[in-house]
Amino acid sequence: MSLTSRDRFARALAAETVDRPPVWMMRQAGRTLPEYRALREKHTFWEVCRTPELAAEVTCQPMDRFPLDAAVIFSDILTVPDIMGLEVKIDDGLSLSPVVRDREGVETLRVPDTRKELAYVGEAIRLVRERLGPDRAILGFAGAPYTISSYMVEGGSSRHYAAVKSLILRDPTLARALLDRVAAVVTDLLKLQLDAGADAVQLFDSWAGELSVQDFNSLCLPVLRRIVEDLDGAPVIYYVNGIGNLLEAAAATGATVLGIDWRVDLQTVRERLGEATVVQGNLDPATLMADTETIQTRTRKMLEETGGRGHIANLGHGLLPDTPLTGIEAFVAAVTEWRHS
Amino acid sequence: MSLTSRDRFARALAAETVDRPPVWMMRQAGRTLPEYRALREKHTFWEVCRTPELAAEVTCQPMDRFPLDAAVIFSDILTVPDIMGLEVKIDDGLSLSPVVRDREGVETLRVPDTRKELAYVGEAIRLVRERLGPDRAILGFAGAPYTISSYMVEGGSSRHYAAVKSLILRDPTLARALLDRVAAVVTDLLKLQLDAGADAVQLFDSWAGELSVQDFNSLCLPVLRRIVEDLDGAPVIYYVNGIGNLLEAAAATGATVLGIDWRVDLQTVRERLGEATVVQGNLDPATLMADTETIQTRTRKMLEETGGRGHIANLGHGLLPDTPLTGIEAFVAAVTEWRHS
Repeated sequence: MSLTSRDRFARALAAETVDRPPVWMMRQAGRTLPEYRALREKHTFWEVCRTPELAAEVTCQPMDRFPLDAAVIFSDILTVPDIMGLEVKIDDGLSLSPVVRDREGVETLRVPDTRKELAYVGEAIRLVRERLGPDRAILGFAGAPYTISSYMVEGGSSRHYAAVKSLILRDPTLARALLDRVAAVVTDLLKLQLDAGADAVQLFDSWAGELSVQDFNSLCLPVLRRIVEDLDGAPVIYYVNGIGNLLEAAAATGATVLGIDWRVDLQTVRERLGEATVVQGNLDPATLMADTETIQTRTRKMLEETGGRGHIANLGHGLLPDTPLTGIEAFVAAVTEWRHS
Repeated sequence: MSLTSRDRFARALAAETVDRPPVWMMRQAGRTLPEYRALREKHTFWEVCRTPELAAEVTCQPMDRFPLDAAVIFSDILTVPDIMGLEVKIDDGLSLSPVVRDREGVETLRVPDTRKELAYVGEAIRLVRERLGPDRAILGFAGAPYTISSYMVEGGSSRHYAAVKSLILRDPTLARALLDRVAAVVTDLLKLQLDAGADAVQLFDSWAGELSVQDFNSLCLPVLRRIVEDLDGAPVIYYVNGIGNLLEAAAATGATVLGIDWRVDLQTVRERLGEATVVQGNLDPATLMADTETIQTRTRKMLEETGGRGHIANLGHGLLPDTPLTGIEAFVAAVTEWRHS
């Protein structure tokens, strides 16, 4: 079977037979690569995000270096609060202001013209397609509504999420209104990426795994389900960090693929959700700090858990900041050299 | 049925019938109470830990204020690295030095005379017993070996645990040697607390939930099982934050009670581990930021999940720093007023 990367990716999304799982890495664009760091000497994070040529350049850097099957567009989930009127500072510690904690805060959020204001993301995808040609997959992404809303309520990262959880408990209707407003922007952002040529989109839910199953089901699930429906069958990968407690709920979103974090075995996922579930993941990104043999043994073990069927090989979370290039090479090679037994 | 708090606690530990579950809160001693904050104006954190009269005072403060069934001794899991020769700074951001990352670091750790060097913990328990009398339960505790070792390898808190995970991957034998050394101290600390009159001890594993099931099973499980065995049947509560992926492994430690975090339903725990499993938990501590009605509805819902059988009511994680006293009152009252239907 001789497949292009893009065919392989499309087949894996559809749970069809492939020679071996396609491979990409969350956070592969940016962060660890020396050529990215060199570019960041000259440009701020936001400049890179907002300039299609620079975003495309950073998106393609890992594609030039490693035999990855899919590129993921360089962007940030905080482009959404940015166009909704919050000031988002990233470079010296994350902060968003003003925080959104009451009815007035929600009602005075800007209703942006997402397709116009985030047109640069679509433009970057078109440039990436030109550079990569037709044979490799391109992924768009957005933050999931709960995660984006958390940042907006907390004003940044948080340890306990007390502010957003308080809001949910004290005024669930207002919390839902906030998520709905965010979801409308997220949906438009995902659509514009698909229209620009993305083969699939990933919804990143960094913080929803901190919720109880009850709160996830009542607050997050309906809005996620609606986003998936609004994309009319386009392939959606839903990643929630801490999916182990939320497997059934995550499956109920209707997403094409579930991104699995490293804390739960892929075998367990298949046992609980059935063999037909397409999964993405899930090597602990810290594994890439180890020696080549350990990385490859663990990667192969992960592939054996699904037998390579309905599986997009990836890490269980984003690439860690100080990952050595040799670790990335070892991981990618272990996947590309693997074949069905 | 008229039970003292201590009887109620002992019966719950043994999964015997009780009028209603006993209740205490992780981190109930210290943190949020104004009388604790007043005392901390005059004494550093370590002074309070190391002075039995002050530790006993702080331990009893929540017992005076709320109708809790059990006191938990005011102490810190970092007393262990402290007596193993690391300098532990707590007051202005946590730091431990020197970090332990190689064979020399492990081999040069102090082998302390734990019973002597941490005698102040036992003394505090004796003073608490004098103050509380015979009718309320007293709990001792220690950090679990993996969590303590993480702090020693990382030199403090960490976001990704890259250093400790690297150590595990690169030299699993050395990682095991570190955990074994820590476990020896932990075991002695738990024994001295039981000898001083603690009715049960809790092992806190804040970070083991960040490991894959595979790593938990190979690294943490054997050492936890040995600690439980070495305590000769004394009641042990094992709390690992993120237990949802580790339920079967946590049960295999042989602990009397499993502490459950808020991300997993108690009903799910019972379904997976069987009705005989004694559980502790698991209201999301952020719930205590809500209004009284919401807190009480959610607390009662949690109690209905187990029907109050084999259940020690608690939060699913430590009390959050800014929890209002009215929230604590609402939670405790919801438990103490509840009865089997």
